[in-house]
Amino acid sequence: MTIVLGANQYGKAETRLVRVERGGPRHELRDLTVTVVLAGDLAATHLTGDNSQVLPTDSQKNTVYAFARQHGVDQIEDFGLLLARHFVSSQAAISRARVDLSEYAWQRLGPHSFQRAGGATRTATVTVTESATVVESGVTGLVVLNSTDSEFTGYVKDPYTTLPEAKDRILATEVNARWRHAGVEGDWAGSYAGVRAALVAAFVETYSLSLQQTLYAMGRRVLEERPEIAEVRLSLPNKHHLLVDLAPFGLDNPGEVFVATDRPYGLIEGTVQRAEPGSS
Amino acid sequence: MTIVLGANQYGKAETRLVRVERGGPRHELRDLTVTVVLAGDLAATHLTGDNSQVLPTDSQKNTVYAFARQHGVDQIEDFGLLLARHFVSSQAAISRARVDLSEYAWQRLGPHSFQRAGGATRTATVTVTESATVVESGVTGLVVLNSTDSEFTGYVKDPYTTLPEAKDRILATEVNARWRHAGVEGDWAGSYAGVRAALVAAFVETYSLSLQQTLYAMGRRVLEERPEIAEVRLSLPNKHHLLVDLAPFGLDNPGEVFVATDRPYGLIEGTVQRAEPGSS
Amino acid sequence: MTIVLGANQYGKAETRLVRVERGGPRHELRDLTVTVVLAGDLAATHLTGDNSQVLPTDSQKNTVYAFARQHGVDQIEDFGLLLARHFVSSQAAISRARVDLSEYAWQRLGPHSFQRAGGATRTATVTVTESATVVESGVTGLVVLNSTDSEFTGYVKDPYTTLPEAKDRILATEVNARWRHAGVEGDWAGSYAGVRAALVAAFVETYSLSLQQTLYAMGRRVLEERPEIAEVRLSLPNKHHLLVDLAPFGLDNPGEVFVATDRPYGLIEGTVQRAEPGSS
Amino acid sequence: MTIVLGANQYGKAETRLVRVERGGPRHELRDLTVTVVLAGDLAATHLTGDNSQVLPTDSQKNTVYAFARQHGVDQIEDFGLLLARHFVSSQAAISRARVDLSEYAWQRLGPHSFQRAGGATRTATVTVTESATVVESGVTGLVVLNSTDSEFTGYVKDPYTTLPEAKDRILATEVNARWRHAGVEGDWAGSYAGVRAALVAAFVETYSLSLQQTLYAMGRRVLEERPEIAEVRLSLPNKHHLLVDLAPFGLDNPGEVFVATDRPYGLIEGTVQRAEPGSS
Repeated sequence: MTIVLGANQYGKAETRLVRVERGGPRHELRDLTVTVVLAGDLAATHLTGDNSQVLPTDSQKNTVYAFARQHGVDQIEDFGLLLARHFVSSQAAISRARVDLSEYAWQRLGPHSFQRAGGATRTATVTVTESATVVESGVTGLVVLNSTDSEFTGYVKDPYTTLPEAKDRILATEVNARWRHAGVEGDWAGSYAGVRAALVAAFVETYSLSLQQTLYAMGRRVLEERPEIAEVRLSLPNKHHLLVDLAPFGLDNPGEVFVATDRPYGLIEGTVQRAEPGSS
Repeated sequence: MTIVLGANQYGKAETRLVRVERGGPRHELRDLTVTVVLAGDLAATHLTGDNSQVLPTDSQKNTVYAFARQHGVDQIEDFGLLLARHFVSSQAAISRARVDLSEYAWQRLGPHSFQRAGGATRTATVTVTESATVVESGVTGLVVLNSTDSEFTGYVKDPYTTLPEAKDRILATEVNARWRHAGVEGDWAGSYAGVRAALVAAFVETYSLSLQQTLYAMGRRVLEERPEIAEVRLSLPNKHHLLVDLAPFGLDNPGEVFVATDRPYGLIEGTVQRAEPGSS
Repeated sequence: MTIVLGANQYGKAETRLVRVERGGPRHELRDLTVTVVLAGDLAATHLTGDNSQVLPTDSQKNTVYAFARQHGVDQIEDFGLLLARHFVSSQAAISRARVDLSEYAWQRLGPHSFQRAGGATRTATVTVTESATVVESGVTGLVVLNSTDSEFTGYVKDPYTTLPEAKDRILATEVNARWRHAGVEGDWAGSYAGVRAALVAAFVETYSLSLQQTLYAMGRRVLEERPEIAEVRLSLPNKHHLLVDLAPFGLDNPGEVFVATDRPYGLIEGTVQRAEPGSS
Repeated sequence: MTIVLGANQYGKAETRLVRVERGGPRHELRDLTVTVVLAGDLAATHLTGDNSQVLPTDSQKNTVYAFARQHGVDQIEDFGLLLARHFVSSQAAISRARVDLSEYAWQRLGPHSFQRAGGATRTATVTVTESATVVESGVTGLVVLNSTDSEFTGYVKDPYTTLPEAKDRILATEVNARWRHAGVEGDWAGSYAGVRAALVAAFVETYSLSLQQTLYAMGRRVLEERPEIAEVRLSLPNKHHLLVDLAPFGLDNPGEVFVATDRPYGLIEGTVQRAEPGSS
């Protein structure tokens, strides 16, 4: 019997970084969580505890903070590129660095005063290997709801089906999306705003026959409007809103009173991409 | 030895209610969590399991949904009053009903499309007894930050004190506030907006020597600006942002790079109220 | 109009402390979260930002760690007493100190190896003023379930009642209890084990006609068996398990298949105490 | 520009199922969360909203409950196989079904009384396609700690390294592991107990030079002791316990007082597997 080490990686997860830009009386604020994941020739530490190829996760954390001071923090894609390239170029044993970043939005209240916006979180994942660099951007926690213009009918009826067909239901989801950029440079802020607007517009404007249809429309809209994006992956929980039966109380309920449920929930996941050349 | 039943109460917690107002093509959306708490002559069920005075919590939940249909849901203070008064007036055994309501904000995206706003949650607590009715409104999860104009100096130094005095620090907190109305009627929406604006303005405009000072300024501002409010209670976690020591990397850090910590945190709690007549 | 400062307090919340006792090859482990809350003559910092009476919450945290080294950590009640008395006796402005402690259980795996037990958390709250000392112990997160011997019948039927009477249901709750000791010294470990056993025994052995009846039986059992306890407060969420209707699939469901729901839930709260002398 | 649908799947997530086995006065209890994920020929619903190939997630949930009644629930691997095979065999459009199951442990308190155990959760993932069936078992939330016999030295020092070498530190992690069975039948309960014991034994008995070394030892131990297992994947957060500097208070701290931190944390992930035939 031979036992071997397979795929492995390590890094520092969830380093919390707040950066104040004090160029003058008007401050700028950036609020990030940064996760570093490194892979490469790490067999020695696993097999014998020889750490001579291991950059401590504590040093990775320090690098995040030092780079924030040295280079500033503007777009998370750029900050991720800086970090990921640094780890691959400076550590002989590391052949792949991935940096995951989440940015929390704050609204300005005054020259040096801010309110955390809540709602959606902007994300980026940058992956650098010796041969390739991939930048993905994303959004999580973007909760949207249509109170009409959603049906669900014509589905499979099997012996376990009791769901009545719905010609008018609430459709609500928490958009968790990640999109891959074709390149590694760009107007990241403009791209993020554009993609997010496309996702929301498609959700709002689609008369939905299924959440899958809405998902595809959202991904398609992004690719139609944003040439810099190569692929969109969407994970959409169907946040069920159930019509309450008020008949026992002598009341009708024409799509007005709902219970918002936590669990279980549908989960619809899909990728929309540009066709490979010659593959269509 | 005599053993007796002391204070007791019961109710249905965290009923999730979403109400769509479909007056026309333009829908309105209300998204609430409602908790009912009843107290009164409930000894029998505790001592012998005689439930003849117990209104099931399931019926309380049904009442929330039925009332949402019958009366609509506009201001949470009014919806809470309606429910609390109903339980006290319709249940002989119940001498006190408290209804806690949380309302989640949604931004409009279209005639029947919405995005959950995140950020702060509006709350209300209505308490009705046979002799009194109290309406409190509140806000939770309102995270605010000043990146300067905050000091902390001149404090007690005891043998366990290592904290250096700070002439310029980040001050950040999550405002959890509750304020009691003098009356039981009013422009609840306008009052909420006004109180929230006063809280935020005082946070932003106070040059802070301590979070306690900021707390008092916030409460005072509410009472100065809003005559309908009798008392403000504030619970302000001090969300510490620690300046990162970058000297090991040959870098200074003039108030720019911070680690946002989760635990432990300071917790500052206080009440600001109008003086009782003749008590000053 | 006169505006005044009302009740107020402050302190360091959720200091995480792990103490290893290394008396020999066999280590002992204590894992606590400690919250300090101080009150007293704190008007100056609120009104003018004069911090000359404010012991920083950072110093409070340091005290927790230093005392853990100086005095060790055995029973959380004793550790809380030590801390609370220290703050009141050493700080002229502080007239009341409360210390809340949670202890997470670990099971021994070897001389210096442990596994976190999960399940229930032991708690204590110690309150010291210039004139009185109160020790409360408690438990949170103790989830228990009876799969039969529970009914709920004979309750009020109002126009919003649809709940069918149940002659045999699941009764499940998460015991959150706090009990006040008559004195301030004792065999805390033995008392905790005894009270917890009494709570569980009463839950198991009570044929329940309502969760209120079970609550009272639990509190009563503690007071009957543990003379050192003066009062028990219980907060018992009714963790509903709903029988699934399998009739559409041609199946019966004689109390076998349930959906465990998260929200909403009933919440039953009550106090069981010894009668005041002459009050019965 | 051609835009196409890429990989996609859907299903019902987090169906909560509690099963009481009432064979006699002594009940058995099973408490599961079940997630179903289906993939196959689902283009129509995405592209046109034609749901004629879509089995509603509501029906998937119903199937979980109905199967729990029809077939009982014993080992989660078997229950997952039953469900996954059902979806693939009964739905023409579905070419792959994956079922994720989590089982929460309860300790017996009496013939029909139970206490939720907390601590670790047993998991299984069953994946069925037309050509292959894969059964994985796992554990999450198993928190273990060694209070000595852990070093971390000899690592890379780069310009951002400040971490002092440690000859004696706390090593703590939350074991999140998943292991693939070579076959699709077996003594699942015995296998789970054996694998879990092997993981824990390796953690306890390894004098650790790095968490990576401990990870590999844990995976290796499983494969050495359990011939039915083909591969083990481990995700081990390094739950840092930092020695508190007590020197400012005139105290030493010989490995006794620690602060348990939440974030950031190291995250060590790796796979240990049997070598492919001829690959070594």
